[in-house]
Amino acid sequence: MITATIITIGDEILIGQIVDTNSVSIAKQLNAAGITVTEKLSIGDNAEQIEAALGRAHQQSQVVIITGGLGPTKDDITKHTLARIFSSSLVENKAVAEHVERMLAVRGIAFNALNRSQALVPECCTVLFNHHGTAPGMWFEQREHVTISLPGVPFEMEHLMEDEVMPRLKSYYSLRANIHRTMITSGIAESILAERIAEWEDALPADVKLAYLPSPNIVRLRLSTYDCEDETVARQQIEQLFKKLYKIIPDNIVGYEDASVQQLVHQLLTERGQTLAVAESCTGGTIASRFTAMAGSSAYFLAGVVVYANEAKRDILGVNYDDIMRYGAVSEQVARQMAEGARRITGADYAIATTGIAGPTGGSAEKPVGTVWIAVATPTHTIAMMRPSGTDRGQIVNRASAYAIEMLYKELKK
Amino acid sequence: MITATIITIGDEILIGQIVDTNSVSIAKQLNAAGITVTEKLSIGDNAEQIEAALGRAHQQSQVVIITGGLGPTKDDITKHTLARIFSSSLVENKAVAEHVERMLAVRGIAFNALNRSQALVPECCTVLFNHHGTAPGMWFEQREHVTISLPGVPFEMEHLMEDEVMPRLKSYYSLRANIHRTMITSGIAESILAERIAEWEDALPADVKLAYLPSPNIVRLRLSTYDCEDETVARQQIEQLFKKLYKIIPDNIVGYEDASVQQLVHQLLTERGQTLAVAESCTGGTIASRFTAMAGSSAYFLAGVVVYANEAKRDILGVNYDDIMRYGAVSEQVARQMAEGARRITGADYAIATTGIAGPTGGSAEKPVGTVWIAVATPTHTIAMMRPSGTDRGQIVNRASAYAIEMLYKELKK
Repeated sequence: MITATIITIGDEILIGQIVDTNSVSIAKQLNAAGITVTEKLSIGDNAEQIEAALGRAHQQSQVVIITGGLGPTKDDITKHTLARIFSSSLVENKAVAEHVERMLAVRGIAFNALNRSQALVPECCTVLFNHHGTAPGMWFEQREHVTISLPGVPFEMEHLMEDEVMPRLKSYYSLRANIHRTMITSGIAESILAERIAEWEDALPADVKLAYLPSPNIVRLRLSTYDCEDETVARQQIEQLFKKLYKIIPDNIVGYEDASVQQLVHQLLTERGQTLAVAESCTGGTIASRFTAMAGSSAYFLAGVVVYANEAKRDILGVNYDDIMRYGAVSEQVARQMAEGARRITGADYAIATTGIAGPTGGSAEKPVGTVWIAVATPTHTIAMMRPSGTDRGQIVNRASAYAIEMLYKELKK
Repeated sequence: MITATIITIGDEILIGQIVDTNSVSIAKQLNAAGITVTEKLSIGDNAEQIEAALGRAHQQSQVVIITGGLGPTKDDITKHTLARIFSSSLVENKAVAEHVERMLAVRGIAFNALNRSQALVPECCTVLFNHHGTAPGMWFEQREHVTISLPGVPFEMEHLMEDEVMPRLKSYYSLRANIHRTMITSGIAESILAERIAEWEDALPADVKLAYLPSPNIVRLRLSTYDCEDETVARQQIEQLFKKLYKIIPDNIVGYEDASVQQLVHQLLTERGQTLAVAESCTGGTIASRFTAMAGSSAYFLAGVVVYANEAKRDILGVNYDDIMRYGAVSEQVARQMAEGARRITGADYAIATTGIAGPTGGSAEKPVGTVWIAVATPTHTIAMMRPSGTDRGQIVNRASAYAIEMLYKELKK
């Protein structure tokens, strides 16, 4: 089994100024390729700490990926530390220097000594060319170990992972698959679920690991096998296990989780040549941004509206103002009219609408914070549903967006 | 200086299934109280790894906080591992048992053996009562060390940190403040900024640490001092340093702290009682969702539209279709008409519009991927600007959103 340690560098992580999403995306890619991450570590911009962490990582893993600390300023010390660890001197890489100069020229920025320093790399490393930024990635080989240093800017790191790091790792090691598959259950408490499936759990093969991932009203069950000799056989084994599980709790299985639901909707609409419009109130543009984030969405995503004000609901979507006054902006009637209005003004085949109370204020006994009405309008009919979506503004926006997209998906699958 | 190590436990973190936000909120609270986090570590649900990590953490920090692995199911092993490490046996805590039974009864769930196991705690620990969930927190003292185990459910963990852990830590140690203050600069590249402020940076006192935090079009500069003898004096020192900095780059200072530019706009519009509408094409709802994510935004945010299709630009915003055909959807003319249309249909005081090529396809020699036209319409005039926003879809959306919000901010500050 090839294992990896991920090290993210930056005081901003240790003081809680940023959320570390880099290590999440790195872990995902490594896992998908069959490299098992055994530890993730975040440390400060401190040479001693970086050296100690690398030393430890090299003892426990073949692959070490470090992000951050590659900028042009004095607080960025990763490159110098790596050069020292690998007993290598820093030399200018011509191709990188020219690339940095060109990138800055486009933005009308002069190439100065600090920028030039970005083209310095330890002599012993292979440069991973960063087409999307000025700090190059670096690849170090030492016997069975590979150490990879990547910039901390998420999209630069992601491109380098996909285009440079993963292909190289796949050819460097002979990798065997890790498989993770998650089944979503709902409406059953974790302890009751565990009791109900105890026999099935006890009979799991030794190489299959079960994890319970509880969240409100949903418990996800993940089966994992690492370092599979035969990927196809291992996948079939997991499918068989889930089939047995399904027979025990058929009413509580909501579905599987691999592709996000918006990706499934994206695929379906693209294949069918059908179109979508979105009318959002409490979700505030989140549903639109989830669809438009996907390349190719312009083929089906016609338009979205974020109608916060009652007047906007009336003027843009044609929602009946009297109904807003009578039933409230957060009501089945308004949700339905929003979805139907979005279809009408855009000519889309499908439309989603959300209207709810995202808080922290605006709740009442009858309609507490978290109350969200969701409607989906289709070519033949409109459905609406009330979904309580939590207590915290961010949580409500995210959950209500997920519920709404799921509702559309179910309609598309009917 | 009191230092801490944060350990988050769970295979779901190592395979990239979840983003670890627990350690962010713990780090924030510890830092605010003057406890310096030197390392964050994520490991799997594995007894050996947990023991090894705890051993190392105890060598380097006085405070160790562990989250996760406290559920009722078999994959949750933190409690057993802690009992072994502290050579203590597990005993049932009556108060916790009653609380778990009561919590489940409310949800109509029977109290079974698994639930009863949640009331088992190592005899040597102090129970931190979890009012919001079934897994109790635990506090272990050993000479100068404190080890704290918390449930992994974010909401439960946060309540325990605030209500139980922080008050206890503050009384257990005599703490001295850590101070972090961040200034936001815009419109100046990191390398040019570093050159411009080099003299100021070189003259910083030895105990003040500077960090550059670059993001699209914005570089934040953070000054930190740890373990301050006199908090007031240290705060004044940082203020003085920032005042000097202001004199060097007065035109590039946007604001202080981690207020994002949208928060500054939010403040200004709220204070002035003015309103905003947004018309997005390439940014696809991201600008709307940034504003609506902030509590209280409904006071000024009237509506947003995401007009991907040309017909939607015409039908919803009244953009002249001939102009779209003549100049292209990504053009100054269309951006201006979108912003003005958004003002007109909503009656908002201000409107932002974006139209660009987010890619990966749709670019041309004349208008390559990343070309974005941004317009801001105000009560008196409309401005428009072309901003090249990068090469990657996500990057283009984020940068163009940042540019657009900044353009509005500058208009508001005029």
